[in-house]
Amino acid sequence: MKYGIVAFPSKKLQDLANTYRKRYDPHYALVTPHMTLKDPFEVDESDVNKISEALSKIASEFGPLHIHASRISSFFPVTNAIYFRIEPTEQLVDIHTAINEAIPAGEEKHTFVPHITIAQKMTDSEHDDILGQLRMTGVDAEETIDRIHLMYQLEDGSWTAHETFRLIGNR
Amino acid sequence: MKYGIVAFPSKKLQDLANTYRKRYDPHYALVTPHMTLKDPFEVDESDVNKISEALSKIASEFGPLHIHASRISSFFPVTNAIYFRIEPTEQLVDIHTAINEAIPAGEEKHTFVPHITIAQKMTDSEHDDILGQLRMTGVDAEETIDRIHLMYQLEDGSWTAHETFRLIGNR
Repeated sequence: MKYGIVAFPSKKLQDLANTYRKRYDPHYALVTPHMTLKDPFEVDESDVNKISEALSKIASEFGPLHIHASRISSFFPVTNAIYFRIEPTEQLVDIHTAINEAIPAGEEKHTFVPHITIAQKMTDSEHDDILGQLRMTGVDAEETIDRIHLMYQLEDGSWTAHETFRLIGNR
Repeated sequence: MKYGIVAFPSKKLQDLANTYRKRYDPHYALVTPHMTLKDPFEVDESDVNKISEALSKIASEFGPLHIHASRISSFFPVTNAIYFRIEPTEQLVDIHTAINEAIPAGEEKHTFVPHITIAQKMTDSEHDDILGQLRMTGVDAEETIDRIHLMYQLEDGSWTAHETFRLIGNR
């Protein structure tokens, strides 16, 4: 089964992201706006309890995540996804590393760039157009996320929550 | 903010429900297939911790839910929603009662009929047509759900997971 690990920002920031995703992101209907902490990975359903245990341990070590969505940026030319850039704090980098060390399945291919995707799968010219517009609007939101979620994917591509982990530590 | 309490069946049963929802349920993209344990209710975001505590207590009392999706039925003429009927066991009725007693917000208007919606918002003639077809196919799935979820709704109508509660008791 395919799993992923995410943090959902506040309703307010999700609503803001959705105003863009509705128009520009074909994944809009598959999952609500999120910051990915571990890219989707395949794991046997019988091994999910080990993953839960690993995440419980991590969640007992880390405190709520302070995030600052500071500007609108793009992964172009690697992909043409546009996103709210989240400042890569030591805390975010550390929890990302901790998760990927504890759960080696489906290793990360890229450097970790914390972000919330708001547009993707456009043509190059749409991308340039939309990025130009969105950059002018910008984003500036600071908040605290006190939990992370283990999600799994259904056959139609949509994601269901498997489990929540409250961040109750102080790293 | 609007909250709801649900139990997600297995991926297999969700995938089956989605084969119908994709075609017949306009709420398809807003949330993955689920059995509602408490209808959507408004509660101030600052009160959500009280709700979490109440659900933690209930989840410590109840064991995993045994469900049997036994046939395809309809709420017609109250609404024209078509659903997998879940046999209303004492356990399901009890957890539904416990949740609604512990969280009085937005009291339930109907008798509790455990179900997973697979089609809704059709015209009456579409409803009759589809119900006839689906009844012939039927459904027969028994399984165990070991957790419940507190969800909240975004402005666009989609639902995000707030918290999971593992059912670790023995009621």
